[in-house]
Amino acid sequence: MSKTPAAPAPYADRIERLRAACRQRKLDGYLLLNRMDQIWLTGFTGEDGAVLVNERHVVLLTDGRFDETADREAPFARKVLRTSRTPDITAREIRRLKIARLGFDPRHMNVQTFAELRKALKGSRLNAASALISDMRRIKDPGETARIRRAIEIAEQAFQNLLEWLRPGMTEREVAARLVYDMQSRGAQEAAFQPIVAVGPNASLPHYEPGERRVTQREGVLIDWGARCDWYVSDLTRMVWPGSIPPELAKVCKTVLEALELATAAIKPGVPAAKIDQAARAHITQAGFGKQFTHSTGHGIGLDVHEDPGLRKRNKLPLEAGMVVTVEPGIYLPGVGGVRIENDVLVTETGHEVLSALPATVRVR
Amino acid sequence: MSKTPAAPAPYADRIERLRAACRQRKLDGYLLLNRMDQIWLTGFTGEDGAVLVNERHVVLLTDGRFDETADREAPFARKVLRTSRTPDITAREIRRLKIARLGFDPRHMNVQTFAELRKALKGSRLNAASALISDMRRIKDPGETARIRRAIEIAEQAFQNLLEWLRPGMTEREVAARLVYDMQSRGAQEAAFQPIVAVGPNASLPHYEPGERRVTQREGVLIDWGARCDWYVSDLTRMVWPGSIPPELAKVCKTVLEALELATAAIKPGVPAAKIDQAARAHITQAGFGKQFTHSTGHGIGLDVHEDPGLRKRNKLPLEAGMVVTVEPGIYLPGVGGVRIENDVLVTETGHEVLSALPATVRVR
Repeated sequence: MSKTPAAPAPYADRIERLRAACRQRKLDGYLLLNRMDQIWLTGFTGEDGAVLVNERHVVLLTDGRFDETADREAPFARKVLRTSRTPDITAREIRRLKIARLGFDPRHMNVQTFAELRKALKGSRLNAASALISDMRRIKDPGETARIRRAIEIAEQAFQNLLEWLRPGMTEREVAARLVYDMQSRGAQEAAFQPIVAVGPNASLPHYEPGERRVTQREGVLIDWGARCDWYVSDLTRMVWPGSIPPELAKVCKTVLEALELATAAIKPGVPAAKIDQAARAHITQAGFGKQFTHSTGHGIGLDVHEDPGLRKRNKLPLEAGMVVTVEPGIYLPGVGGVRIENDVLVTETGHEVLSALPATVRVR
Repeated sequence: MSKTPAAPAPYADRIERLRAACRQRKLDGYLLLNRMDQIWLTGFTGEDGAVLVNERHVVLLTDGRFDETADREAPFARKVLRTSRTPDITAREIRRLKIARLGFDPRHMNVQTFAELRKALKGSRLNAASALISDMRRIKDPGETARIRRAIEIAEQAFQNLLEWLRPGMTEREVAARLVYDMQSRGAQEAAFQPIVAVGPNASLPHYEPGERRVTQREGVLIDWGARCDWYVSDLTRMVWPGSIPPELAKVCKTVLEALELATAAIKPGVPAAKIDQAARAHITQAGFGKQFTHSTGHGIGLDVHEDPGLRKRNKLPLEAGMVVTVEPGIYLPGVGGVRIENDVLVTETGHEVLSALPATVRVR
């Protein structure tokens, strides 16, 4: 049935690890419905895809739009072109591989697909096996870390350049657009996400969308941006002060920087993710801003901008070498402004390495 | 319990229509988990949200990052800030409103949320009521059409400008980046999607990602792009020929343009969506390229780039005035190239209006 060539590195190894994880959970096969999971496992980047893996086969289901892409990127998979998104063809392939117990990630299958697939499958059992792929994706191999480093480098070059061209009078939206263009001109595939550029009081909204407010001499500009390079992302935040730091934000700035340092210093293998959050939060709380730190301290990055491990209150997961996380404490004062500083940090065998090279110190021009 | 102001237009009306649809289906309430559905119903644009509607109340669940955004955008909703994404708080609000039969869209709830919510709810029943919101979103009101027109206008201005600056030697990625920057400089919120810029044989991949291939004098460039303005999108495709049309693509070009005209001419209220697809497909098939037209003829646009109605083979849904659809026949010859032309078309009371003003004729510079 299979006339496919062997999968190249790193995919062959990842596929074998998935098979081992399936055996351990007594699953006969696994269905991947998430694009980034598919890219990680097979290298296939098409927007419409489903990957079915069992002990012997890798089947890639996609549609005619990605026919050539599949041949180029994952020639080792058996390609099945479907004419509709209905799960009938997926079910047919599951039966063809005689999979009785099929694992899948319940976060990446919607209720409609589940119901349709269950109906079409009859005999086979669908087993939610949530963390199978995302657990493996938490630890980055050297090839992945190299791509993240490149995504950081390009984002930082563009930011250094921004410090040259940023002028009072520009709108937040103009600044964001130019920053994205600059990253792409330097080789980024795209922005990792639409950058946040928030002037003055707008910076108190942690996930603000850039608008028509203009950069001024007397207000801070919060910039949260990242690049995607070869599918891997960076995620950084810096404050730019075109004038001096307003006195009402001086203590806030100092506290955030200290929290960043404390949280970063706590990063090493074996430490629970929650401890990193606690290191930042305890300091910010002590300074009297606990209620103004409205989000968690950080999250993993990789193919997704937000992935495991979350550096949040109740996450007991111990850090491991090879994880890459953001550290991004922030304090937000509605009507006044906000300060957040964000670095990308690799967990190493002996501790950590801050991958972002921009000074964490708030920039004053 | 509710001390909220009344919802403004158009949200008050949309909420009432949702309530009427719920009554008809004997649902006591409806849970929206999709961001674009939430924007449509309430105007709340935050990235993390869940909206719960019953006969008397609108509850907006979000997290601390979107606290101020919720106050600004949907002051008429009762705001509930949750500290985690676990469905416990959602379940608590469902119980508080005494909702026994809760509707939701099974395409926008994942299996994990469903399982957790069902467990937390105990008594209440979760009723998949798929098309409730998306059915309403199919028909655009004048405010929505105005935003789509604006998104088309900005995309077209940027394209006209591209015809001035496009030069042989530029990479696909550079062209895409500059096009996005230009749309944002003209007031677009963002690109509706990462533009496709595909030179020569790359154009045979209908969903190509722009890469390092360079524009040349002798090859066509397929450009598929759109703007997002005030959340509504445009979606257009044109071919640019820096030189003349290569002879091997002459018949392909002619056929695609004829298919575009035939499909467009067929658009009027009452005609099933499949008929529009058929009009394009029959012509392309007759010209001998049936197997090279590997996707459907078009799709609705609005808050999402792909929404109802799909102009595809088996969609019997009759068109209605107020729908906005793309018409985008294409022919793809692997190793040679591809041609696609795409317009945005409004279904009117009497027929249709082509909203995009760029000549459909292939541009020759």
